[in-house]
Amino acid sequence: MPLDAIELPRSRLSPPDSLAHLFSSDRYERVSHALGKAYRDVVRGMRGQFDHPPDLVAHPTDEQELEAVLAWASGGGIAVIPYGGGTSVVGGIEPRLAGEEYPGAVTVDLRRLDRVLEVDSMSGAARIQGGAVGPSLEDQLREHDLTLRHFPQSFEFSTLGGWIATRAGGHFATLETHIDDLVESVRAITPSGAWASRRLPGSGAGPSPDRMLLGSEGILGIITEAWVRVRARPRWKASCGVAFDGFDQGVNAVRELSQSGLHPSNCRLLDPVEAEVTHAGPPGKALLVLGFESAHHPIDPTMGTALEVAREAGGAPGEVRSTGTPEPRRGAPHEDRPAQGEAGSDPVGSWRHAFLAAPYLRDTLVCLGVLTDTFETAITWDRFEAFHAHVTDAARRSIAEVCGVVPDGPGSPRLSCRFTHVYPDGPAPYYTVLAPAWRGGEVEQWDEIKAAVSEAVIEAGGTITHHHAVGRDHRPWYDQQRPDPFAVALRAAKAAVDPSAILNPGVLVDP
Amino acid sequence: MPLDAIELPRSRLSPPDSLAHLFSSDRYERVSHALGKAYRDVVRGMRGQFDHPPDLVAHPTDEQELEAVLAWASGGGIAVIPYGGGTSVVGGIEPRLAGEEYPGAVTVDLRRLDRVLEVDSMSGAARIQGGAVGPSLEDQLREHDLTLRHFPQSFEFSTLGGWIATRAGGHFATLETHIDDLVESVRAITPSGAWASRRLPGSGAGPSPDRMLLGSEGILGIITEAWVRVRARPRWKASCGVAFDGFDQGVNAVRELSQSGLHPSNCRLLDPVEAEVTHAGPPGKALLVLGFESAHHPIDPTMGTALEVAREAGGAPGEVRSTGTPEPRRGAPHEDRPAQGEAGSDPVGSWRHAFLAAPYLRDTLVCLGVLTDTFETAITWDRFEAFHAHVTDAARRSIAEVCGVVPDGPGSPRLSCRFTHVYPDGPAPYYTVLAPAWRGGEVEQWDEIKAAVSEAVIEAGGTITHHHAVGRDHRPWYDQQRPDPFAVALRAAKAAVDPSAILNPGVLVDP
Repeated sequence: MPLDAIELPRSRLSPPDSLAHLFSSDRYERVSHALGKAYRDVVRGMRGQFDHPPDLVAHPTDEQELEAVLAWASGGGIAVIPYGGGTSVVGGIEPRLAGEEYPGAVTVDLRRLDRVLEVDSMSGAARIQGGAVGPSLEDQLREHDLTLRHFPQSFEFSTLGGWIATRAGGHFATLETHIDDLVESVRAITPSGAWASRRLPGSGAGPSPDRMLLGSEGILGIITEAWVRVRARPRWKASCGVAFDGFDQGVNAVRELSQSGLHPSNCRLLDPVEAEVTHAGPPGKALLVLGFESAHHPIDPTMGTALEVAREAGGAPGEVRSTGTPEPRRGAPHEDRPAQGEAGSDPVGSWRHAFLAAPYLRDTLVCLGVLTDTFETAITWDRFEAFHAHVTDAARRSIAEVCGVVPDGPGSPRLSCRFTHVYPDGPAPYYTVLAPAWRGGEVEQWDEIKAAVSEAVIEAGGTITHHHAVGRDHRPWYDQQRPDPFAVALRAAKAAVDPSAILNPGVLVDP
Repeated sequence: MPLDAIELPRSRLSPPDSLAHLFSSDRYERVSHALGKAYRDVVRGMRGQFDHPPDLVAHPTDEQELEAVLAWASGGGIAVIPYGGGTSVVGGIEPRLAGEEYPGAVTVDLRRLDRVLEVDSMSGAARIQGGAVGPSLEDQLREHDLTLRHFPQSFEFSTLGGWIATRAGGHFATLETHIDDLVESVRAITPSGAWASRRLPGSGAGPSPDRMLLGSEGILGIITEAWVRVRARPRWKASCGVAFDGFDQGVNAVRELSQSGLHPSNCRLLDPVEAEVTHAGPPGKALLVLGFESAHHPIDPTMGTALEVAREAGGAPGEVRSTGTPEPRRGAPHEDRPAQGEAGSDPVGSWRHAFLAAPYLRDTLVCLGVLTDTFETAITWDRFEAFHAHVTDAARRSIAEVCGVVPDGPGSPRLSCRFTHVYPDGPAPYYTVLAPAWRGGEVEQWDEIKAAVSEAVIEAGGTITHHHAVGRDHRPWYDQQRPDPFAVALRAAKAAVDPSAILNPGVLVDP
C-alpha cells in the first residue's frame, strides 16, 4: 500500500520550539515506527492498518538530547516508547496505550547511538552504544579482531540496547544463551537520572542492578550503552548433522550432551517436520545440528566425544565439517552469518540458511495466504515429553478449529518443533506454525491460536517466552507466570524511577 | 567466658500465648544468635560483648509457622532477622537496628527446614529447604548419587537459603562461580505472601524474579526452599600445582586460561605470601592450583592443554594428580571436602587443607593476639595491576599505622592475595591480613583497616564484595557503588512487599 493511501490518525503532540529539532511527525517516520515484526504486524502493515502510530518520533544523537526528550515527556505525562530495531514480535514497541490517560506517544528511536566507544582487548570487553545494530557493531569490533558472537534471528536489524531490554537469545546453544551472559555493565537513562553499573567481571553486592534492567523492556529506563564481553574470532570450528529415527531419540542425545559439560556452541535439534521444511535432514528423520568452536584450541576431539554420545543414543552422524586456521584472519567477513540466499549443500548449511531466511520468507508467505508464526518456551527435561504432547495437541486442535482444516487431511497445517537452546536441566523448544489463512481474518486467526497455545504452555508449567520477551501481547500469561510479590515489587520499582509512568506503558506492568 | 557471666540486655518482647511455642528467649539461644563470624564477631564474642542480641529466637518447622511469626512481627512492627548458619562476616545477621523505631527483634532460625524434598534425576535438579546446611544436603543428595558441589568456606555450617540470600561463592573457579548459577527456582515467604518462581531451565520473561531474591539478604522475604541444579558426582579429576617466579606471570597465565574456554573447575592463583603461609608452594613462588573434573569423560587432555598455557606463561607444573573411576562410586563420602586436620602431602592438598582449616585456625589466632581477617573483590583484567597496587598499598599503610608496625620490619604484618574465582573479563582477588593486634582494641583496629581498604577498593573501581555480601558492615561503600536509580527501585520494591519494614532492617537499604 502506498504511504499516502494509509489512513493515519492526526498527530496529537507538538513539541516546544526549543526541542522541535529532535522530533519528527513525518508520515513515513510515524508509519514505520507503528508496528513490530510479528505475523500480526506484517499482516496489519500489508492491510495499511496502523491504528496506533506514535504522534512523534525522536532520534536523539546523545544522552543530553535523550534526557531533554524524557524531561519534556515526563512534564506532560506523554508516553515514551523506546525503539531499537523495531523487531519485537510481542507488541513491545507498538504505541497501544492502556486507557486514554496519555495525551499522546513519542517513539524514541536510538539508531543514532550506534558506535563502539571503547575496546578493552585485554579483558575482552567493549563499550557499545544501545542503538548499534548487529552488523554495525560486529563491523566495528572486527577492526580489533574481536566479536560479540550474539546472532539472534533479527541480527541484521536489532540493537544491543534492544537485546538487553528483551533478554535476547543468541548464537550459543549452551552457556551464554542470552545476551544476559555477555553483559558486563549497563547504562540507562531513567526519568530519575542515569542508572549506570560498574564494570565488574562478577559481584555479589546485593541483587544485580544489571539483572533488573535485563528484561525490563523499556519500562525502567532507556539503555544508552553497555560494556559487553567480546572475544577473539573462532579459529577452529566443527559442525555435523546427526540424523535420528525419532524425535525422542534425539531428545535423549541432547539431554546427555547438555549435561556432559562439553558445551557445544550449536546443539539445535529439529523434529522431522522442521528438518523437512528446512530441507536439512533426510525425510522422516529428526536432525541434530551439532557444532563446536574455539579461538584457543582445536575442538575435533570434543566433537568426537559428542558424536559418541549421539551414536549411543541411536544417531547417525553425517560428515564432520571442520575448519582450523593457523592464525586468526584479519578483517575476514563474519562468515557465521552467510549472506541471504546463500544455501549450503550440507544439512547444517541448509538449516542455517533456512534459519536466516525465515523472517524474509515470511512476508512472501503472508502474501500467499499462509498463516505463519512461532512460539517458544522452556521446560525441564522431566516434564518435556508430557509438556510437548500437551502443547502440540492444543496447537493442532486450535489450528484445525480456527483454520477449518482436518489435522492430517489435504492442505493440513504444519506444526514443527526445534530446540534453540539447551540447559543441563531442560531444553528451550521453539514451535513453528504453517497453516492456510483466511484472507482478511489472519490477525484474529493467529490471535486465537496464540491464545490457545499460550494457555497450554502456562498450564503445563513452561515459560511464556524463552527469548521473545513479554511486550504487550504476552501479558495475560506472563501475569499468571510471575510470582505475585515480584509483580508488586516490580510495579513499585517502576513507579519509583518513573513517577509519571511515561515509559512503555502497558509492557510488563499496568501504568 | 561462661554463659552466665555474659551481661545481656533483658528481652523486650513476649509473644502471644498462641504463638509462645514458636519462640525462645533462652539465654543460650539469644547469645548464640547475636553475632556472625567475622573477626570482629569472634573478638566480641570472646570479650563477652553481646550488645544487640535478638529479643526472641524462633525456630519454625514449616511455612505456616514462619507465616505466623511474620504476621505477628508485621503487626507489632518488630524487626525480623532471617538466620541460616549464622556465618555472615558482614554483620548480616546481627540485630543492630538503625534508630530506635523497633520495639525489639526476632531472629528466625531456619535450621529445622533442612530436608531435600524432591529429586529429579532426569533434569539434574533437587528441591531443597532453605535451612539445610551443606553437609546435610550433600548427604541427602548422595543417596541419589548426586551432588550440588557448592562448597563455600563456610560449607559445614551455612545453609542453602543463606547462600541464595547472599549470593555465596562456591567450588567452581569458572562458570558456576556463585550459587546464582545453580538456582533453578526460589520460594520465599514475604509479608505479602509467597514469592515462588516456576521451575525453568531458562526464561526471558521480564527481569528474573530469582535474580531479585539472589542477593536480597533477607530484606524482601525468607527463602524456604529452592530447586537447584545438581549433577552426577565427578568420575574423573585431575589437579596440578604450577609454580611461577612472580605473581604477574601467574596472572598472565590465569587470564589466558579464563579466556580459553577450557573452564577449569579450580583455577586459584596464590601470591608468594599466600603460597608460603599455606605451605602450598616453594618459597618465594606464586602458585596456581589448577583442577579439572567431569562426571562424563576423561579430562587429562584438557589438563594437558591448560598446562601448555601455564608453561608458555613461564609456569613450572608439578606432578598431575589424576583419578578416574570406571563406574561412579555409590555412597562414597564427599572426598572433595577432606576432614578437618587431614593435610595432604602435595601442594594442591596443602592449599586445600589450609583453605578448609582457615576459619577454625582463626579462633586460635585471635587468642594469640593476631589480627586476622580478609576482604575480597573483583575487577577487570585491564585494571587489575593498578588496582592491586593501589589496594595493597592502602592496606599496608593502614595496617602499619593502625598496628604501629614497620611494613617490612620485625613482626611485620602479612598481606596476601589469591584469586578465588576468575572470569573471561577479570579475576576475583581475595586478600588476607595477618598483623599484631592490640589487646582490647582489636575491633577498632580492624574496623579502621577495613575502612581504608574498602575506600581503596571502591576508588579503584572494584566491587565492595564478590561473595561475602553487603550486610550492615559494607553499607557505606555499597551505597557508593550501586546506581542511584537502582537504590531508589530497590527501596520501593522492599517497601511494597514489606510495608512494615520488619525484614532485616539496615541491610542493603535503610528502613
